[in-house]
Amino acid sequence: MSSLDIFTGETIGTAVLILLGGGVCAAVTLKRSKAFNAGWLAITFGWGFAVLTAAYISAGLSGAHLNPAVTVGLAVKGATPWSDLPVYFAGQLLGAMIGALLVWATYAGQFRAHLTDPEILAAQPTEDGMVDQKTAPKAGPVLGVFSTGPEIRHAAQNLLTEVIATVVLVLAILTQSMIPGVSPDDPKGPGVLGAMITAFVVVGIGLSLGGPTGYAINPVRDLGPRIVHALLPLPNKGGSDWGYAWVPVVGPLLGGAIAGGIHQLAFV
Amino acid sequence: MSSLDIFTGETIGTAVLILLGGGVCAAVTLKRSKAFNAGWLAITFGWGFAVLTAAYISAGLSGAHLNPAVTVGLAVKGATPWSDLPVYFAGQLLGAMIGALLVWATYAGQFRAHLTDPEILAAQPTEDGMVDQKTAPKAGPVLGVFSTGPEIRHAAQNLLTEVIATVVLVLAILTQSMIPGVSPDDPKGPGVLGAMITAFVVVGIGLSLGGPTGYAINPVRDLGPRIVHALLPLPNKGGSDWGYAWVPVVGPLLGGAIAGGIHQLAFV
Amino acid sequence: MSSLDIFTGETIGTAVLILLGGGVCAAVTLKRSKAFNAGWLAITFGWGFAVLTAAYISAGLSGAHLNPAVTVGLAVKGATPWSDLPVYFAGQLLGAMIGALLVWATYAGQFRAHLTDPEILAAQPTEDGMVDQKTAPKAGPVLGVFSTGPEIRHAAQNLLTEVIATVVLVLAILTQSMIPGVSPDDPKGPGVLGAMITAFVVVGIGLSLGGPTGYAINPVRDLGPRIVHALLPLPNKGGSDWGYAWVPVVGPLLGGAIAGGIHQLAFV
Amino acid sequence: MSSLDIFTGETIGTAVLILLGGGVCAAVTLKRSKAFNAGWLAITFGWGFAVLTAAYISAGLSGAHLNPAVTVGLAVKGATPWSDLPVYFAGQLLGAMIGALLVWATYAGQFRAHLTDPEILAAQPTEDGMVDQKTAPKAGPVLGVFSTGPEIRHAAQNLLTEVIATVVLVLAILTQSMIPGVSPDDPKGPGVLGAMITAFVVVGIGLSLGGPTGYAINPVRDLGPRIVHALLPLPNKGGSDWGYAWVPVVGPLLGGAIAGGIHQLAFV
Repeated sequence: MSSLDIFTGETIGTAVLILLGGGVCAAVTLKRSKAFNAGWLAITFGWGFAVLTAAYISAGLSGAHLNPAVTVGLAVKGATPWSDLPVYFAGQLLGAMIGALLVWATYAGQFRAHLTDPEILAAQPTEDGMVDQKTAPKAGPVLGVFSTGPEIRHAAQNLLTEVIATVVLVLAILTQSMIPGVSPDDPKGPGVLGAMITAFVVVGIGLSLGGPTGYAINPVRDLGPRIVHALLPLPNKGGSDWGYAWVPVVGPLLGGAIAGGIHQLAFV
Repeated sequence: MSSLDIFTGETIGTAVLILLGGGVCAAVTLKRSKAFNAGWLAITFGWGFAVLTAAYISAGLSGAHLNPAVTVGLAVKGATPWSDLPVYFAGQLLGAMIGALLVWATYAGQFRAHLTDPEILAAQPTEDGMVDQKTAPKAGPVLGVFSTGPEIRHAAQNLLTEVIATVVLVLAILTQSMIPGVSPDDPKGPGVLGAMITAFVVVGIGLSLGGPTGYAINPVRDLGPRIVHALLPLPNKGGSDWGYAWVPVVGPLLGGAIAGGIHQLAFV
Repeated sequence: MSSLDIFTGETIGTAVLILLGGGVCAAVTLKRSKAFNAGWLAITFGWGFAVLTAAYISAGLSGAHLNPAVTVGLAVKGATPWSDLPVYFAGQLLGAMIGALLVWATYAGQFRAHLTDPEILAAQPTEDGMVDQKTAPKAGPVLGVFSTGPEIRHAAQNLLTEVIATVVLVLAILTQSMIPGVSPDDPKGPGVLGAMITAFVVVGIGLSLGGPTGYAINPVRDLGPRIVHALLPLPNKGGSDWGYAWVPVVGPLLGGAIAGGIHQLAFV
Repeated sequence: MSSLDIFTGETIGTAVLILLGGGVCAAVTLKRSKAFNAGWLAITFGWGFAVLTAAYISAGLSGAHLNPAVTVGLAVKGATPWSDLPVYFAGQLLGAMIGALLVWATYAGQFRAHLTDPEILAAQPTEDGMVDQKTAPKAGPVLGVFSTGPEIRHAAQNLLTEVIATVVLVLAILTQSMIPGVSPDDPKGPGVLGAMITAFVVVGIGLSLGGPTGYAINPVRDLGPRIVHALLPLPNKGGSDWGYAWVPVVGPLLGGAIAGGIHQLAFV
């Protein structure tokens, strides 16, 4: 793969991932959305099919990592050259920011309605300006549409949760990368079945391990939209919770590296 | 493919698509349906499996476009001759109207019960006679079973939402059209896996991007049933909201063309 | 296929189909079930995965029709010899009755608790002893665990609904029977992908067309369990609604034949 | 397969299975989880995708039994040597205990919050200290996150339910083990499609047959986490209900053996 293909594929793919992933958070969270309050199952399936769509579109160009934790896991495993990492990371972060902007464009009317609703403005934001996803409809800030946040704030605990969830994700993707006809790097064509299985694995991780922190399991999925949240001139948008921002970056990177190590040891 | 095969396949396929897609809207919206109030997840999965069923049935005949936006995207891409467009469009629009009639035939008892319910008749229709899907059970009109409508009426914003959602859909389908063994045009047989993946992509688009406008993402999905709504002699049916009708036609066509262009540039 | 293989495959397969399909109705309807009131999405996915499991298990033996409407459609199409029909039908009806007995065995404690609950006994059964699925938890009879019933009783209308829904089902299955590697009759092995797609088609039909009558779309799915309901010595079980019993038998048979004809005309 | 591969594969695979399966129970049951009260559909899909992820990861090493009932069924069928059983069982039990520990690590904050909540402490535990999953949020003990328990306690009835549900599971897996390209033992690569189908079969069994006992259908899925529950020094954790513990061990083992026998008779 050329660097241009990698950069293009990761940018487009991650933009689609965050457009759809952030989109389902907007759909369920914001007032005057038809999917308002559609529940946790809707959020987890929404993120799963976001992965499916994004992986499917970009697999032929870049192998559809779409996640620095996956790239790190593949590098530890020896399946991706370390020298390609900067190109992957750059495309992923840029794509995530574009995706977050597209969420805003798609839901601009709902953002406006939500952030100027007197009932919502009267509600107290949660501690340190963080949005609590369950009470979000009642609270002012909309950070939860962009980035993850913990239900119970405890850095070490939250980090551990993100590490565990990411190990599961990357172990599954490393397995896939070794199966002929399923791997997205397979010369016979992008891994259609692989994209579908990864999608359901992501739904499963959300359902099972998403309860404590909202499962970033992907550094740019959290950081890219958080930067956009900080920059967008939305009225009453609340803080961007930079104090927590390192957890969903460091946790997934650690998890990806650990999964690469486990895979190298157990599945050679 | 012969013109007859294209016309037959698109007519049957789009009829099945709208029968099932409109059917789930009827199932969830109308009084005295067992699925009454089954929620947004039911609607989005219902539309996804409508695509699966329709694509599966018609792929062998016409390639299962079932959507002028898809046909336009494939034409921009060079995968469908421009001269075939009129036949595709005619089959799609006819099929959509047949499908809407079949929804009415399937749910005739529920339509009657719903439209003569005193409680529903007493309720105020929303502004400009449009049905609001969330309050539909309480409001008179049943247009929401047939066509889409915005939660917040703002033509430019609604158009943008439809364009973005359709770009995602058509990008995924154009990717699929290039994978051997998955493309519905593949001489080795209809793309079974492709139909399944497109179905889940459509569930994902509904969950993630359907909140503002109800995701037409297909001109005939909206226009065909709207014509049928205008013609059907249902008592108390309310208006057909022709003022909005151009948005879900123009938006998806624009989105399909843009997706064709992106694909041509990035994925040659 | 030998007659013995057909009979064995259809008996085992249909028993599994009704065990799981009737099981999800019991799970959602009966008091003191962990899935009590789990909703329409649970019912429709439960029936879909019932089809998946049953088709998967029996495809290698009998081709996994599991439904006289499917057998009739394949016979009209010329894909199944008419002389095989009695063996298919016998296995299907026997299997459906075994499946209904297994539902009772699995949920015997819940049946007992439900049918002796004073609150449930005090509630009025609906007109002609039919169970209404939405109010079933409050009404005495448990027929809804075994057989289907209409929300609005109108024979011609209910028949039409069952015909339309079955045409969609059998069209999809006839399509599948012609795709190499997907057809369950394919000598290279049972149609694994085909079973999965049929499962999702059945979920879709349930979501979209199940609202008026509860989608029998299979004569033995309704008749076999209804016979078992009539025979089982359950206290306070209510009537078996034999007046409606012909609709979910005749409708699906008609639908299967019509689908065979459409397929023969349009998809040669 | 070497004994080391079997042991490694089963340990890692069953650890992932229980991490995700127990995880979804924690997610839905424990206070201050974002998925709190997400419902039975979330639980059943969570367990299904737990099977998918675990089977996918471990298929290449050990064939992904992950369940003594499956191993027994394959041994009765003659597809797994009886002499391999101790290694399979050891890996499975160890993996299940590791998985339960990982659930606790992932949800440590939620366990703490839940078990020290005054409202929860004030609630009465159910009879014999067993957690009732539906009222769990209001009751003290958290055993339901680890192990299964019956809604209506009746050993013979509960045993029968577990036997029936496990027969369905193991019949499906034995079918799969005979299809080239789908079997996880296939030399051409792990059975990707097989893992996906098994996952949906497990969702189906949960939806349809899980109502009475919570569907252990796997001895170590219940016993491993129960041991961990007994050992973990959680405050106010309640009893481990050892009186019931034999049912979800004996029932699935019986079911696996019966399924092996049926398969040997009917599907040779």
